[in-house]
Amino acid sequence: MTALQKLLHAQFQHQSRLCIGLDSELSKIPIHIRNHEDALLEYNREIIYSTQQYACAYKLNTAFYEQYGSKGWNILKESVSSIPQDVLSIADAKRADIGNTSSAYAKAVFQDLQCDAITVNPYMGYDSLAPFLEYENKMVIVLALTSNPGSEDFQRLMCNGKPLYMHVVETVMSWKRNADIGFVIGATHPAELSELRRMAPDIPFLIPGIGAQGGDIEATMKANANGPVMINVSRGIQYAGDSIDFGEKAKNAAQEYCQKIGFHS
Amino acid sequence: MTALQKLLHAQFQHQSRLCIGLDSELSKIPIHIRNHEDALLEYNREIIYSTQQYACAYKLNTAFYEQYGSKGWNILKESVSSIPQDVLSIADAKRADIGNTSSAYAKAVFQDLQCDAITVNPYMGYDSLAPFLEYENKMVIVLALTSNPGSEDFQRLMCNGKPLYMHVVETVMSWKRNADIGFVIGATHPAELSELRRMAPDIPFLIPGIGAQGGDIEATMKANANGPVMINVSRGIQYAGDSIDFGEKAKNAAQEYCQKIGFHS
Repeated sequence: MTALQKLLHAQFQHQSRLCIGLDSELSKIPIHIRNHEDALLEYNREIIYSTQQYACAYKLNTAFYEQYGSKGWNILKESVSSIPQDVLSIADAKRADIGNTSSAYAKAVFQDLQCDAITVNPYMGYDSLAPFLEYENKMVIVLALTSNPGSEDFQRLMCNGKPLYMHVVETVMSWKRNADIGFVIGATHPAELSELRRMAPDIPFLIPGIGAQGGDIEATMKANANGPVMINVSRGIQYAGDSIDFGEKAKNAAQEYCQKIGFHS
Repeated sequence: MTALQKLLHAQFQHQSRLCIGLDSELSKIPIHIRNHEDALLEYNREIIYSTQQYACAYKLNTAFYEQYGSKGWNILKESVSSIPQDVLSIADAKRADIGNTSSAYAKAVFQDLQCDAITVNPYMGYDSLAPFLEYENKMVIVLALTSNPGSEDFQRLMCNGKPLYMHVVETVMSWKRNADIGFVIGATHPAELSELRRMAPDIPFLIPGIGAQGGDIEATMKANANGPVMINVSRGIQYAGDSIDFGEKAKNAAQEYCQKIGFHS
């Protein structure tokens, strides 16, 4: 089964286009479990267990684990292995480097962590992403137009009559690949999302920026026009509760987001 | 002491502009140490010990350590701590993400690994790099024009009359910062290096692409016009020998590269 098939299957099974972000930090998880050994892993497992019926994907941002060194890397790996087999696991790593180096990153994420998908940065061009794109049954999700204010700095520069992010989408779509591809497009740019959806009607978009970053679900879903999509929510779900019932609170938040996003197969 | 002062001091002390890359992989290190416990760490320590008199910096590419999971992350950290205090340590990580995430990456590299410098990717713009730039006495080295073939795909796109990489250099130089900045410019582009040196006469450039990637030292040094520079060599030094005398071979290779590069204070 390809990664895209897995995603679409999970979406249909759970009637959900919600991707849940696990950007877990010790200083933010409920106080009562902070002192447990492997507190972050225990926390992640509870969030995953509580919310899985409303998720089509989980996205773990590697930064939050790397900050705890090798112990964090272990928690990352164990957390990924706690994600149900039928739900997509995404390493939000935004990697890319020269060929032999990207091969090592691909090995780290696809083989060691065993994630289904990775986010990558297009700046270094084709050969920097080729080692990821070679993998069958994986998904390579390329940054196009990100949700943050800095997306203005370079991504929107007009290059030969088109903004850079549009060159990225067009060029990446033309590349040879075994993996499925996807694009990151922030929920903070509904007009551009609508345009990109027309350019790439069948490509899955990973859409962050809902919630803490101010993106609007309704405008996003309208602009997406029913293309394959994962709407990511991190802080709005994982930190919905800060006490003994944090799992229940996360579940309720996930259910609510899932319904707001809606599902039409 | 700022990171730039540390670099310039190391260059003067060792009469060297050579940065040695440690992209260490189990399948490539000499057979006789592969089965040692902590083989990669032992290997890195020997390379560092043997070559340090000819180095102004060491650059560890995080990918090669991440592929070994949490054990690899430990080796990375221990290797960094084996670098002499007076030589610059660079995490070649090519990171960048939205603000709160880049803060975690900065913590991982500057606080957990205790590196002096990091390479970062400019695609996501100012707020994605601000958490790195906030650190005093660190260096943030931004990808501008990379050494690989894929640098043609986006970095050279003409945007409002100038190639994207030039926008990156100009824009990054205008940003507020506590850290020192630097740029990655591949040795495979001497004409552009010369142009960028005129734009940024005092900014250190990290120049990969010598050796395995085909860049020419003489053309590079001429184009650099005596600006502050680190010429990186990875495979050409660390894999100079493949037997019991690999340290000695690496030392000889480092000495040779150091002399070829030359030093004029």
